[in-house]
Amino acid sequence: MDKYNIAKDISKNLSKYRMRHSVGVMNTAKKLAKIYNCCTQKAELAGLLHDCGKYFDDPAMINKAKELGLNITTTQKYEPDLLHGPVGAEMSRLKYNNLDQDMYNAIYYHTTGRPDMSKLEKVIYVADLIEPFRKYPEVNEFRSLVGINLDMLVIKIMDKVICSLVRSKKYIDPTTILARNYIYFHMKND
Amino acid sequence: MDKYNIAKDISKNLSKYRMRHSVGVMNTAKKLAKIYNCCTQKAELAGLLHDCGKYFDDPAMINKAKELGLNITTTQKYEPDLLHGPVGAEMSRLKYNNLDQDMYNAIYYHTTGRPDMSKLEKVIYVADLIEPFRKYPEVNEFRSLVGINLDMLVIKIMDKVICSLVRSKKYIDPTTILARNYIYFHMKND
Repeated sequence: MDKYNIAKDISKNLSKYRMRHSVGVMNTAKKLAKIYNCCTQKAELAGLLHDCGKYFDDPAMINKAKELGLNITTTQKYEPDLLHGPVGAEMSRLKYNNLDQDMYNAIYYHTTGRPDMSKLEKVIYVADLIEPFRKYPEVNEFRSLVGINLDMLVIKIMDKVICSLVRSKKYIDPTTILARNYIYFHMKND
Repeated sequence: MDKYNIAKDISKNLSKYRMRHSVGVMNTAKKLAKIYNCCTQKAELAGLLHDCGKYFDDPAMINKAKELGLNITTTQKYEPDLLHGPVGAEMSRLKYNNLDQDMYNAIYYHTTGRPDMSKLEKVIYVADLIEPFRKYPEVNEFRSLVGINLDMLVIKIMDKVICSLVRSKKYIDPTTILARNYIYFHMKND
């Protein structure tokens, strides 16, 4: 299935706002993929699909995750919206036969990151947070940093996300912490 | 063994600075235990002992942890100093026969916290960070908050610690994240 048909398909479930964001991530992911030398086609499709599971309320999200056979962590039980990545990845895998493991992982981990992310996973993580419709104080700074080392960019955004979650007293996924620790360790030791 | 003999014993390994801090934590833990209604004697001893494993350099800390049969997490491998709680707890358990499981846990988790901490664990966690010799911008604010709900106090300090670690680009133990998520969840849902 090509991106036009996928867009048509996921728009059945997603709001106009969510679709605008998804197309923003698709386009930003394509640009980042060119800059950071990874497959633009995979980046576009994973970017378009990254939020395709983000339309369930909390109980429905838990049920959908169970139905899909996903492991549900304690933090995901506290904050079921954290499951929209894993649920979207599984839904995409079942529906679109041109989804490879890397694209699956990029959708699965786009909200939290994880240790040892692939280049595509990092591209989708970043694109999600800097696409043109995102608005938060640091977003222009992050956009202007595109082109620097991709790990540096990921960790700057990740650390900002962690502090924002702390300030707003929201749950933090420990996987994000493991992801940033991993990057710091390898920046110091590689 | 009483606190005077324990102090004499641990001072063989700890610096004057570390001993001063340990006595500070012992005294603060006693005060907090009175306020928050937990055993003052256990609080004093756990406070005195909390850093008794904090005198190894990184390779020696890893070796000591292995020797004691402790599980070493990835984050502890990155930052071996995070093992000084577990190492100190094990050393104390082997040396002092008046150490119960709650005191053991309070020493073990004093740096990171953990989900579902006991009152004693919270008292030692807080005492470590507000004892009279601690100096950092928010310390007086935290001291002045003593008396409020203990979970509120723990989470205020924990969130400050997380943001400090982010700002200084240091490793964060994911257990701290699980600890704060747990408190937030139970504050909302109990």
